[in-house]
Amino acid sequence: MSREEMDARAKERLVGIAREWYEQMRDGVVPYIRLPTRTKRNLEYDDDSEVWKYGDRESTRSAATEKSAIHLLKMAYVIGFLKQQLVENRSSTLRELYYISEGWKKAKFAAQDESNLLIEDLEIITEMQREAFHLRPEEDGASIFGPLRLRETTRRGVKEIHCQEDVGEAGYPIPNNVDNLEFTDHDAKFVIAIETGGMYARLMENGFDQDYGAILVHLKGQPARSTRRVLRRLNESLGLPVVVFTDGDPWSYRIYASVAYGSIKSAHISELLATPQAQFVGVQPSDISDYNLPADRLTEQDINALKAELTDPRFATEYWRNQIRLQLDMRLKSEQQAFASRGLDFVTKEYLPTRLSEMGVI
Amino acid sequence: MSREEMDARAKERLVGIAREWYEQMRDGVVPYIRLPTRTKRNLEYDDDSEVWKYGDRESTRSAATEKSAIHLLKMAYVIGFLKQQLVENRSSTLRELYYISEGWKKAKFAAQDESNLLIEDLEIITEMQREAFHLRPEEDGASIFGPLRLRETTRRGVKEIHCQEDVGEAGYPIPNNVDNLEFTDHDAKFVIAIETGGMYARLMENGFDQDYGAILVHLKGQPARSTRRVLRRLNESLGLPVVVFTDGDPWSYRIYASVAYGSIKSAHISELLATPQAQFVGVQPSDISDYNLPADRLTEQDINALKAELTDPRFATEYWRNQIRLQLDMRLKSEQQAFASRGLDFVTKEYLPTRLSEMGVI
Repeated sequence: MSREEMDARAKERLVGIAREWYEQMRDGVVPYIRLPTRTKRNLEYDDDSEVWKYGDRESTRSAATEKSAIHLLKMAYVIGFLKQQLVENRSSTLRELYYISEGWKKAKFAAQDESNLLIEDLEIITEMQREAFHLRPEEDGASIFGPLRLRETTRRGVKEIHCQEDVGEAGYPIPNNVDNLEFTDHDAKFVIAIETGGMYARLMENGFDQDYGAILVHLKGQPARSTRRVLRRLNESLGLPVVVFTDGDPWSYRIYASVAYGSIKSAHISELLATPQAQFVGVQPSDISDYNLPADRLTEQDINALKAELTDPRFATEYWRNQIRLQLDMRLKSEQQAFASRGLDFVTKEYLPTRLSEMGVI
Repeated sequence: MSREEMDARAKERLVGIAREWYEQMRDGVVPYIRLPTRTKRNLEYDDDSEVWKYGDRESTRSAATEKSAIHLLKMAYVIGFLKQQLVENRSSTLRELYYISEGWKKAKFAAQDESNLLIEDLEIITEMQREAFHLRPEEDGASIFGPLRLRETTRRGVKEIHCQEDVGEAGYPIPNNVDNLEFTDHDAKFVIAIETGGMYARLMENGFDQDYGAILVHLKGQPARSTRRVLRRLNESLGLPVVVFTDGDPWSYRIYASVAYGSIKSAHISELLATPQAQFVGVQPSDISDYNLPADRLTEQDINALKAELTDPRFATEYWRNQIRLQLDMRLKSEQQAFASRGLDFVTKEYLPTRLSEMGVI
């Protein structure tokens, strides 16, 4: 779909919400919207798409109460603003949208959390991503380095960039709206998504991308939507396996889970963001003992997070149960950069080649 | 200086420290090092370079006590590691260095704070930056967008990049070692350093770089060393005025101060990092009332931070005292994106042109 078609569709769907209210009122019905209940209990595994999505539980918000009427009023103002933004081919941040509501009197947002949630509601109703409304988050800053050529449609024209040849040592920074990207050519065998900047720079310095035909993607901690969308598209449209390399602690396993299975917050767009085929490389709890890695004691929060993962449907496999139980026994966690204790080359010459051939990726 | 010459000098100065210990021992002196005292009391304004530097207070660390002997032992191990790294043309993160010390028995660091401090000591003694030892921080991720052409020497060859034409919408990401950059050409009148990603994207979208010949630099909050070094070099080598545009709160004024005057933590390299000519654009406390910006109440911490700034030598001007007193009276703070309450164009069509011509920049 071209940018113009995408804009037209977004405008049509947004205005469609207001049109429905009009029709409800014309038919003597108090205007309302209907949305899936957004709780963990209403998360269901979808066999076809292999991701977690909202189930059938729904809630209705009708203008019959003052509180809900004001909610719909705010939604009406936001729809009006976004429509205008699409017509003028402008864009704005979620934060700017919140400030713009200053002038909306009764429809003014009390806090940015409120406007953010309303935008998520609009995503659910329209079945489009906020990027299609020309809304962007504050920042992200993840980046790519590897044998990949892409074409980005920017406000200053179309740019063609090779993610090794045309970039500096910091790589190619992923823009907010990934749907302006087209992958035109590549020479890669797989994609490795990396939690920390230190490890991303290590793989680049050691030439891991060249030696193994790897596209390096720096996640920068919990990955932004745009980063997850890029991983999904690299997997889907180029057919490349995606592996995730993080620290060895419960918070990092959640980074992997959000790449592979999606998150509760964005379950309404799991199909666009999640990469169900993504595999976890490590740091595995078993690596901590196998490689005698420098480790820290688990904190109380770590232990609780691991226990919560034992009941999380996303970790309901024998592999994860064994690893998590092992970690609870050892009471230890290690960072990915801890491999440096065995020398700066160990991770690229020993650990990753061994793991990736075990996993059948190389 | 070429990369090879820089490497040779770093190696020579590092090994020189060990050589001095050798000579001390040969002469029957217990080996020691001497360093400036690193406290606020020992900060002095240097009239020539217009930046804050360490004064004359010094402390001596001699191997006469066990604790100091172990400190020198650790330094000896670090020098050995860095020398080897320079010989092999490798590099590593501060975090990796900490992990590498795992194998150093008695010289093992207890925490990364300790190894980071030791590296700062080595910077002071050698009068070089850690980048010259091929050490990099975990991440930074600041970026540039504007009419600037540069040449970056990377491990994969020399890349020539124009920061408008050859980059995507996220701009050109600043690498860790800025001394591998050469500015080859530009068509700019000034540089504007911006605190938030939202405002950086706003100026880019509104074409502020084109309309006013501005190089946009995204600070990403408290700027990393590499970002401050880039600003200094843009000011010094291209003769471009630098202005700083932040939120209107005491923490943001410190961002400005660290760009303009340096920080206590890096006072030993203020001359390399600070841009004394940098001017503050806003958000000024007076803007909050002049433009009736959406604002939040100051917190207790905000008030204390403002009061501390009234006695900070870096804010000892009439302009800053008036603004800070005004803010303490109003008890309000505003973010830069609050200008969006007056429309998405207000900041680039009204506020910045007015302020910058007042300041004599445009």
